[in-house]
Amino acid sequence: MTLILTFLGKGGTGRTTVAIAAAKQLAEQGQRVLLLTQDAGPAFGLLLGAEVGSAPQPVSENLQAVQLHSTTLLEQNWERLKQFEAKYLRDPFFKAVYGQELSLLPGLDDALALNAIREFDGSGEYDVIVHDGSGDQATLRLWGTPEGIDWYFRRFKAVLQSSQFYRSISPFIQPVTGAILSSGNATDLWDQPATQEVNTLVNRGKALVTDPMRLRAYVVTTADESAIATGRYLWSAAQQIGLTVAGALLNQADSAGAAESAFSPLPVNALPTKSDRWQPLMAALPPLTAPVDVPAPMTVDVAAQTVKLFFPAFDKKQVKLTQYGPEVTVEAGDQRRNLTLPPELKGRSVTGAKFQLGYLIITFG
Amino acid sequence: MTLILTFLGKGGTGRTTVAIAAAKQLAEQGQRVLLLTQDAGPAFGLLLGAEVGSAPQPVSENLQAVQLHSTTLLEQNWERLKQFEAKYLRDPFFKAVYGQELSLLPGLDDALALNAIREFDGSGEYDVIVHDGSGDQATLRLWGTPEGIDWYFRRFKAVLQSSQFYRSISPFIQPVTGAILSSGNATDLWDQPATQEVNTLVNRGKALVTDPMRLRAYVVTTADESAIATGRYLWSAAQQIGLTVAGALLNQADSAGAAESAFSPLPVNALPTKSDRWQPLMAALPPLTAPVDVPAPMTVDVAAQTVKLFFPAFDKKQVKLTQYGPEVTVEAGDQRRNLTLPPELKGRSVTGAKFQLGYLIITFG
Repeated sequence: MTLILTFLGKGGTGRTTVAIAAAKQLAEQGQRVLLLTQDAGPAFGLLLGAEVGSAPQPVSENLQAVQLHSTTLLEQNWERLKQFEAKYLRDPFFKAVYGQELSLLPGLDDALALNAIREFDGSGEYDVIVHDGSGDQATLRLWGTPEGIDWYFRRFKAVLQSSQFYRSISPFIQPVTGAILSSGNATDLWDQPATQEVNTLVNRGKALVTDPMRLRAYVVTTADESAIATGRYLWSAAQQIGLTVAGALLNQADSAGAAESAFSPLPVNALPTKSDRWQPLMAALPPLTAPVDVPAPMTVDVAAQTVKLFFPAFDKKQVKLTQYGPEVTVEAGDQRRNLTLPPELKGRSVTGAKFQLGYLIITFG
Repeated sequence: MTLILTFLGKGGTGRTTVAIAAAKQLAEQGQRVLLLTQDAGPAFGLLLGAEVGSAPQPVSENLQAVQLHSTTLLEQNWERLKQFEAKYLRDPFFKAVYGQELSLLPGLDDALALNAIREFDGSGEYDVIVHDGSGDQATLRLWGTPEGIDWYFRRFKAVLQSSQFYRSISPFIQPVTGAILSSGNATDLWDQPATQEVNTLVNRGKALVTDPMRLRAYVVTTADESAIATGRYLWSAAQQIGLTVAGALLNQADSAGAAESAFSPLPVNALPTKSDRWQPLMAALPPLTAPVDVPAPMTVDVAAQTVKLFFPAFDKKQVKLTQYGPEVTVEAGDQRRNLTLPPELKGRSVTGAKFQLGYLIITFG
């Protein structure tokens, strides 16, 4: 089982430096570590003091590093998509498009990165993957992707299948899907093996994101006021995607004092400013792979008919709760979550909500 | 006509601070300025010293500020998409989905931000929009979106229309599109008014990005080695989307000396460290709206049958040139560009390419 570490925090707080120190520390402890950056620029290699390429390569004992290049990933994945298409479609039509000519649009790079991490995670070659991403909302969107895709898939399937549009074209569906798909007697795209394959991937991704022994975040901050405010914001926003923040790291500081109350009840560790040597910084890190003892993002109490959501740094005004049709939706930290409820609470009406000691407590009737 | 300013640079170099100073300076000069941030966190408001909301609000004379909230934008745009759908489709099917429940996936936030900027740009209410984005590859992907969409549209249209798939379903297209679209005698989705409307938007976006009197970038750096290297990288990568970098700003420095050779031939201005007062920082900024005199990202010489691309900070190994089918593709800075060639060079073969004084010079036969 691989544990993925990711770092959140304002730009310039030293996230990448801390990620490198974490990777070095874990490798020294005998863990097989992959240090992975999404930044294609030169800063990562300069900080690490090693050349890094688009495939993992050894840096020191137990430590490999890789710099994701979206253009390279796009080519590789396009070839795979074409194979996937050829497997399921009678006459694949993307064969005429070359991976080397595909333009990169916003979001594509994150989708490609997530897929690359998934593959490294599943390879069995690493005990720990240290992820150096943008550390902001974009990183939260990245880790929120599996739940987001799952929601779109479920919701739009239901909407489309009950629409007049679907009924209008249903007489044509059998001949059209028959002409498209390799299987001649196809009925519905939703039930095809290709769709099932994607579904399995999405469910695995959802399970990974909410398990702190598979994925956890640390907030990196300095004593600077806006860095602490940004760190607290991201800590709270992480709860919206079910991502556990295991601790705060106060960088360039002698003691944790300046951040302890801001991040209570998280453990806070002070990290010294990086000097010529990595050792002091590595030695100051907390145990990064140990079990965590922090509040869970979401707790369900079926008997009491309540759901508790942890929002440590938001107040009542920053959280919006709505119920539309089948969905109970929480909006906070510029992120939206449609709650996945246990069967006992599904379809029930929200009868109350209150903010108490950093928790949004929702009661169902 | 509105001019958009955007800032590129490594995290922690003070991009947001410089953006605020730029907005204040231009407002003081009498320009109607909108300062727009894509960061939904609290740091922007703390730095600006004012509360900022998801709609523009006055900060001081001539200066308004807005903080884009993707969740709010998603709701608004979903309502508009539903109106758009209702206008063109006989039976719109998204009416059953509420904007308030839509999850945010990677890329959606950038697409929404781009659309919001487009609307502010078109409103006629601002002379200058100062854009505070992530300042990295993600910002370049954002501004590269119109060209990217245009390419996907053109290329996939050609591929689909010549595919066996398209021929298989073409007998069904008339009745299906007739059932879907408001117009009963529809023939092809590619020729629908909805498609034309999107096309027009994309072409306007393309024209904006490559005109330095409509959009320009400044690189923000400190004297730190990796900040300069990142700034140079982003400067070069910006050329790939046709975005003009008008100058470099060396932040927290007394003189421009430390960055002048790295960014030659760009003008470099030294900016003092921000103190309690904004005035010294504002006064040190270059004229941000003046015509620029820097190398163009792409120059075509039809008589000599050459195309010159400006890549100031890359070497030969970092740039890849390929020709597949109808496309001449250049890959550099983890960005890919399919060259838009004049009719005289279109469809011609690349016969040579060389690197000379920061330019990739491509010769056609």
